[in-house]
Amino acid sequence: MIASHIHTALGIDFGGTSVKFGVVQGHDVIDRVPPIATDDYTEPAPLIDAIARVIEDLRARHPSITSIGVGVPGFVNFRTGTIHNLTNVPGWVKIPLREILHQRTGLPVTVENDANCMAYAEWKQGAGRGMEHLVCLTLGTGVGGGIITHGHLLRGAQSVAGEPGQTSINYQGRKGAYGNLGSLEDYIGNNEIAADARDHYLAKGYERSITDCTPAALATAASEGDQIAIEIWQNIAAKLATAALNACWLLNPEAIIIGGGVAKAGAVLFDPLKENINSQLAAAFSENLQILPAAFSNDAGLIGAAALSLEEADNSPPLA
Amino acid sequence: MIASHIHTALGIDFGGTSVKFGVVQGHDVIDRVPPIATDDYTEPAPLIDAIARVIEDLRARHPSITSIGVGVPGFVNFRTGTIHNLTNVPGWVKIPLREILHQRTGLPVTVENDANCMAYAEWKQGAGRGMEHLVCLTLGTGVGGGIITHGHLLRGAQSVAGEPGQTSINYQGRKGAYGNLGSLEDYIGNNEIAADARDHYLAKGYERSITDCTPAALATAASEGDQIAIEIWQNIAAKLATAALNACWLLNPEAIIIGGGVAKAGAVLFDPLKENINSQLAAAFSENLQILPAAFSNDAGLIGAAALSLEEADNSPPLA
Repeated sequence: MIASHIHTALGIDFGGTSVKFGVVQGHDVIDRVPPIATDDYTEPAPLIDAIARVIEDLRARHPSITSIGVGVPGFVNFRTGTIHNLTNVPGWVKIPLREILHQRTGLPVTVENDANCMAYAEWKQGAGRGMEHLVCLTLGTGVGGGIITHGHLLRGAQSVAGEPGQTSINYQGRKGAYGNLGSLEDYIGNNEIAADARDHYLAKGYERSITDCTPAALATAASEGDQIAIEIWQNIAAKLATAALNACWLLNPEAIIIGGGVAKAGAVLFDPLKENINSQLAAAFSENLQILPAAFSNDAGLIGAAALSLEEADNSPPLA
Repeated sequence: MIASHIHTALGIDFGGTSVKFGVVQGHDVIDRVPPIATDDYTEPAPLIDAIARVIEDLRARHPSITSIGVGVPGFVNFRTGTIHNLTNVPGWVKIPLREILHQRTGLPVTVENDANCMAYAEWKQGAGRGMEHLVCLTLGTGVGGGIITHGHLLRGAQSVAGEPGQTSINYQGRKGAYGNLGSLEDYIGNNEIAADARDHYLAKGYERSITDCTPAALATAASEGDQIAIEIWQNIAAKLATAALNACWLLNPEAIIIGGGVAKAGAVLFDPLKENINSQLAAAFSENLQILPAAFSNDAGLIGAAALSLEEADNSPPLA
């Protein structure tokens, strides 16, 4: 690849607790600055000001930045760049973030759901490169995802498609954030895993603190042979498999890609996951299906947001 | 529309018990012949011979037929036209039906899953006309479906996408045909509805024969005010809603279209279905979502198969 053809984009990963910034070339984050803590801002306007100041600083250091991509934790209308609402950031309702940042910077800006950004990174640069049909899940405090069909990121009618974490694994299950019953996120989100694990240990006669029941602690315990922890991961895998299977029956993807902090558990999660999926699919669906860990880790959101902004900038008419 | 522009195609609807034939122009079936009973044939070859004879007769009556579309009840590789297997017709494994019928007739032939044909009919001519993102379900002995994303029928990696009937509504539920747990079909297929309804009446102290528990009988009872039948439909609606919701969270469609015999129940099914869906979706998904009965009834498969064959014939290079 010729260096002069590598574009530079600014990726912004707007999380529940912090806003991260990275200067991205291809799949490399070539520069970063300390994140902004969202808790320091009670309203959108001053937080947007702070974001705009960081953008200004980074552009001064990298005049080659040609576009800005923002990933946000919530529902966003990709076409207009207006945020419907952010799940864990109060006050961010109906904010036309794309328009605001474009006005401030003069650069092309894209605003997309954060998990869609991760899926985009995996599809363009990571474990799902070159695939036409792909399902990504990202497992953390929340459970998100992104879908590729017909070789395009699937956005759907209101550009909010790709929410496997909200799909149900039990029609009479726990009531979720939107009144939805039995959503995957309400069973295998970080906090739900820890709470259920503590209950599972207790039912077996062991008291564990919640900090000894985090996914990271459970992964260590399982890999050291703790039978209860192994059972807990089998239960998590069975639940995750059901949501993945539902996506398979609907979409017949080439791969299911699993990322996010919980996926770092590795074999204790992936082995029973693959077993559950392969034993519950017709051969026509399973014989060519790949179940893969994500290629990117914490930077997937930054890389995907940046890549998305470059593609959109290329496809848009030049700015006035 | 100018009459000379209306093409004529032969639609063939290959069902679990019979093979139906219709000469199709647009959304009109202009001629039909008696169906062939699949039970009369224990092997594929003589049944294919019988189908080929009917095709010959119909082409003699309608020389304007320019293509043949076949819908089959099972998994088929659309690109090659080879049937993986048919759910309820023994012996139909790895049959290259498209190639066989093309050799016999010299016409362009398409072979597609029957529920995909129905979805295609609804999308091209029916309740989902002009939509870019659409989910169809068809409720009968089996539960099938078809999906439109990005303005194309979604086939996926092995061209077997679009099976909402196999998606799970309970990760610990009944074991289905593919080892899959809690599939929708195993709760709201015709026979499962009847068996569960008989149990439901019995639990309330009433003995009902299975023939008094068919979806048609239950619909009549519910519309006449039978409280138990109304409850049964509410249960069916809750289960169907979960599968429909899962498709919505993943695909963000413009509409969910419900067809097939069970959908003829009308308001006793659709009212609680809409209530369940709207109370379990984020506003960004539900505010523009339509939940619609299918426009076509028994002829959806014929019309869709015929329409699909015309489109493919138009898009293919001319035959030698």
